[in-house]
Amino acid sequence: MKTLHQLGERELIRQLARLLPTRADVRAGIGHDVAVVAGTARHDFLLKSDAVIEGRHFLPDTPPRQIGHKALGRVLSDLAAAGGEPLWGLINLVAPRDTSVARLRAVYQGLASLARQHQLALVGGDTTEGAALELHVFAVGRAPRGTALLRSGARAGDVLFVTGALGGSLAGKHLRFVPRLAEGQWLRAGRWATAAIDLSDGLATDLAHLLEMSRVGADIQTGHIPIAAAAFKSVENETPGFSKAGKLLPSPFPSFGKYAENISNLWKKRAALLHALGDGEDFELLFTVPRHKAAALAAAWRKKFRTRLTAIGTITPGAGQLVWSAAGKSLDLKAAGFEHFR
Amino acid sequence: MKTLHQLGERELIRQLARLLPTRADVRAGIGHDVAVVAGTARHDFLLKSDAVIEGRHFLPDTPPRQIGHKALGRVLSDLAAAGGEPLWGLINLVAPRDTSVARLRAVYQGLASLARQHQLALVGGDTTEGAALELHVFAVGRAPRGTALLRSGARAGDVLFVTGALGGSLAGKHLRFVPRLAEGQWLRAGRWATAAIDLSDGLATDLAHLLEMSRVGADIQTGHIPIAAAAFKSVENETPGFSKAGKLLPSPFPSFGKYAENISNLWKKRAALLHALGDGEDFELLFTVPRHKAAALAAAWRKKFRTRLTAIGTITPGAGQLVWSAAGKSLDLKAAGFEHFR
Repeated sequence: MKTLHQLGERELIRQLARLLPTRADVRAGIGHDVAVVAGTARHDFLLKSDAVIEGRHFLPDTPPRQIGHKALGRVLSDLAAAGGEPLWGLINLVAPRDTSVARLRAVYQGLASLARQHQLALVGGDTTEGAALELHVFAVGRAPRGTALLRSGARAGDVLFVTGALGGSLAGKHLRFVPRLAEGQWLRAGRWATAAIDLSDGLATDLAHLLEMSRVGADIQTGHIPIAAAAFKSVENETPGFSKAGKLLPSPFPSFGKYAENISNLWKKRAALLHALGDGEDFELLFTVPRHKAAALAAAWRKKFRTRLTAIGTITPGAGQLVWSAAGKSLDLKAAGFEHFR
Repeated sequence: MKTLHQLGERELIRQLARLLPTRADVRAGIGHDVAVVAGTARHDFLLKSDAVIEGRHFLPDTPPRQIGHKALGRVLSDLAAAGGEPLWGLINLVAPRDTSVARLRAVYQGLASLARQHQLALVGGDTTEGAALELHVFAVGRAPRGTALLRSGARAGDVLFVTGALGGSLAGKHLRFVPRLAEGQWLRAGRWATAAIDLSDGLATDLAHLLEMSRVGADIQTGHIPIAAAAFKSVENETPGFSKAGKLLPSPFPSFGKYAENISNLWKKRAALLHALGDGEDFELLFTVPRHKAAALAAAWRKKFRTRLTAIGTITPGAGQLVWSAAGKSLDLKAAGFEHFR
């Protein structure tokens, strides 16, 4: 009898999703950042739910306002990827009976503050006693009919862009990130993007989702991937040549020679890149833009936003074929200690 | 520093609700069975979320299809009270890593089966590992603009009706109940009801919610309250004269005399009534109808539904004044072992 752990979360979702009924008015369901349903004559509605659980998404000593910020921010980040405008939200709270009311108030202040910034009304929910503190946030947003950005629109030749810088989010960004709502709405309204996803599971995993839903491949220039300072910082405590799990990594260099210090720096850069690819919870946007619009998009973006924008690769026709290139050579991520992704 | 347990769930919600932002398009928010928001020119949308947690709403040996049925049924019961038409739902699943996939599949079959019966599409959600099995269900429904039944519309003189029979739900009904969607929609469409609520916390508590939101009182004929067979059954294992907690109750009779058996039966009836008032999870509808429509409603109901319908009292003008009457005398529920309610 298989357990959830043996099957894996992704395969479980795939199996359960097959059981669930749909309706003719559902434009996009399970597998996208948000579900898109026919709302009004002018707008589609975007539906999303997500959860944060103590011990998994935050710790007992996490400042409680940041718990609330993260709980709602995760959902807003998904709405952002679709280019949606947030409207209404509900919160299911689970809390142990000895939870301090002051802590819960601060959690809700964090929720309320972010909701207010984005004109989201919090209109209901449920409260239950349970073993750990949990917040389940459900949000409804909208986008003009037929315009919501999905994971499934990328086409061969499109340029892949990513906002911000990636990796090391656990050092603090995962609690304080700014959901890219303005950017997502602007991309949607200007019809710049063909597909988009928010980076919650890490670039490598989320890119794979986008490619799968779009049935395309990608060639990524690893040297272009914007690596966050926090990713470099988190490398400082790691031993060059060893994976985070303490496993000796095969050397990507022909031999350890006289330039020991340079090699150490190369190891560090490689290790930081692995953080940028795998860490998750960056809550940046990854999106695709037709090649002929890419330069204009980059120029218009710089006029409109201070948010960093980087082209990191191109979409290729072969479904699921993901190539990581560095200096013209393809890179074997598995050999670089990346075997637990994909 | 106060804890959640010390403050109580209801007061916590009251305090947290004050922190949360709203919008001009929110017609009814926290405090109602569902939130009502302005959707289209023709429809309002109804938003609701609720949770079931292992050890609290179901047990490790509960048949898993019934867990799914209950998780969605609770939310549909709230939509029913508003007279809503279910549209779309999302599910946040929390499960221990050693949960069997077969069990989860059966839970989702229960969800899917009930969703299909009511044309609800299940379009997304989230899966997280956690200590206990939990299902958080979010649903969106709709009702023609301005017609959704709320807790707040009861007026002095209205007649209070309840569907089905109450009490003893824990014996099985709490896992197998039929959400009263057809009845709620019919009440809404025919403009019969001025206010409605679904019975999830027990008649005494839910009635108090309705009275509070409507700022009225009620005079309830306890002899009219439809007591479920399961409520009588659950009394059989209780000792007459003692509360469920084993506390000696003050006798409602002048003296214990020669009619010991009759007195025992009276005790049993009284005890069953307490179950009907307090047990919760009946998932029946409690609603108010203007006095001049009450007879016509009862006649039209009998033609349309086989669901039992009972008039149990009338709405009175004094806000919060709730009188339980039996044979013309008002009944002191507190003295009858009812002190933990209201």
